[in-house]
Amino acid sequence: MANETTVTIVGNLVDDPQFRFTNSGQAVVRFRVASTERYLDRQTGEWKDGGTLFLTCNAWRELGEHAAETLQRGTRVIVQGRLRQRSYETDTSDKRTVYEVEVDDVGPSLRFATAKVTKIKRGQQTAQVPPQDSWPPVVPIPAAVTVAAGASGF
Amino acid sequence: MANETTVTIVGNLVDDPQFRFTNSGQAVVRFRVASTERYLDRQTGEWKDGGTLFLTCNAWRELGEHAAETLQRGTRVIVQGRLRQRSYETDTSDKRTVYEVEVDDVGPSLRFATAKVTKIKRGQQTAQVPPQDSWPPVVPIPAAVTVAAGASGF
Amino acid sequence: MANETTVTIVGNLVDDPQFRFTNSGQAVVRFRVASTERYLDRQTGEWKDGGTLFLTCNAWRELGEHAAETLQRGTRVIVQGRLRQRSYETDTSDKRTVYEVEVDDVGPSLRFATAKVTKIKRGQQTAQVPPQDSWPPVVPIPAAVTVAAGASGF
Amino acid sequence: MANETTVTIVGNLVDDPQFRFTNSGQAVVRFRVASTERYLDRQTGEWKDGGTLFLTCNAWRELGEHAAETLQRGTRVIVQGRLRQRSYETDTSDKRTVYEVEVDDVGPSLRFATAKVTKIKRGQQTAQVPPQDSWPPVVPIPAAVTVAAGASGF
Repeated sequence: MANETTVTIVGNLVDDPQFRFTNSGQAVVRFRVASTERYLDRQTGEWKDGGTLFLTCNAWRELGEHAAETLQRGTRVIVQGRLRQRSYETDTSDKRTVYEVEVDDVGPSLRFATAKVTKIKRGQQTAQVPPQDSWPPVVPIPAAVTVAAGASGF
Repeated sequence: MANETTVTIVGNLVDDPQFRFTNSGQAVVRFRVASTERYLDRQTGEWKDGGTLFLTCNAWRELGEHAAETLQRGTRVIVQGRLRQRSYETDTSDKRTVYEVEVDDVGPSLRFATAKVTKIKRGQQTAQVPPQDSWPPVVPIPAAVTVAAGASGF
Repeated sequence: MANETTVTIVGNLVDDPQFRFTNSGQAVVRFRVASTERYLDRQTGEWKDGGTLFLTCNAWRELGEHAAETLQRGTRVIVQGRLRQRSYETDTSDKRTVYEVEVDDVGPSLRFATAKVTKIKRGQQTAQVPPQDSWPPVVPIPAAVTVAAGASGF
Repeated sequence: MANETTVTIVGNLVDDPQFRFTNSGQAVVRFRVASTERYLDRQTGEWKDGGTLFLTCNAWRELGEHAAETLQRGTRVIVQGRLRQRSYETDTSDKRTVYEVEVDDVGPSLRFATAKVTKIKRGQQTAQVPPQDSWPPVVPIPAAVTVAAGASGF
């Protein structure tokens, strides 16, 4: 790949990660990250909250499975990926565009936490995935429906 | 500033830069950049175009003036800035969100071009700005209108 | 801060994190990350290893403590920080320059692992730090010695 | 490519770009960029200079030719590329490592300058390259010598 717009976002998960399969049968985990800027107030000399950026992130296959198993609402994460946009039409035929991050790597931030890391041996990976009943219902969802759901999050 | 989501986007201007003043009287130049990914086709061994990302960029004060004077529709640029989002309501009270780049620095790309650079001495800068009649009409525009215009670009 | 050179590096720890105090009494944890590029071989259509980049990273205060408690040799991490250089003289008065990353955030990668995250409540943080006897000897080290040690890692 | 450490550096050229051919006959232009951080002094409320980062950048083929024709000592540039390291031995068999940026794109910054951009049509590119006598002597240089020269810049 070349000329990609890479981005690293550090922030907190707004909701629990959402697991689903694409129409072509690939596992993808979607989660939204809220990242709040901090700035130094010149008058008070104190750090204050600035604006918040929300970005929906898609993690595929094993990376997505590990993310779904590890992260939950409120977890602070570091996400590295590529910024992309996707267009779709609403029910009333309006055109909408959403910006999303294709995740290349993700992990829990150690700024306010520690973590116990468990390495997954390849070959072992399927076995390590939690049984389906501990997951949200895994139903192939039509792309249009999924997109609308993601977009409503804005 | 801290915890900002920095981003570098390389692509072509979709339109000529648009100059305006904010309600508080600050000069800002807005332009849209289209960045197209390239990927290596495994079967043919050739590079092909992938998806395109469009991002609206805001450059303030002297930086914006220099950008407006230098760049035009089609110019390939390198933009470094911070990714932000902004929400507004449409005339029908629907909520919309736009993602924009606050430009920290920008310049014409040398991949397919050369450039003759003219350094602007501070103090000289006002004089170097082209006369107003060579610019788009410079009228203070209500924020809502401007936002809608920017959003329609999606 | 402005005009910083931000960098995100994803790779594996070459050694266990090294804990120490600066001369001014601040806790800093230093670790080295090896990041290996991957490229698509046009002839075979397979992904292969490219060159490896090694970068020494410094994480301060609580972030450093959490990193030392969580990470170990071999852990794959995502590091976000600012690229900096530092110059020093060797015993033979030669000038040397090292490049390092001032860590803004770091976490274990979930690409080949899962993690159990424990949030540290402020105020609780001191208590959560492991007792000193489970750490490398915590001795204030003269800056020159530390630098030489770090540099020898190259 | 995957798992690359991308970096964007904004700063001023320390010297004029240096043009040369590799042993395999490829044109490469090398230049060094100095990037100085700025920070807000809490006591005075003023922005001040922080540390300076120097990075050697390599631009290949047409991109390098356009860079050599456009940039000179003192020009402020935006460089996007991949951070890499390269090892070599000195005459006394000491091992040294240099960090360099493989340039993906570069352009003059518009923060303190404007520019007149000339698009180069493919096919035309060879003709646009300045005649050799206006360049530094273009002699195939053994890699070891070149590396030592670059390294001495530290």
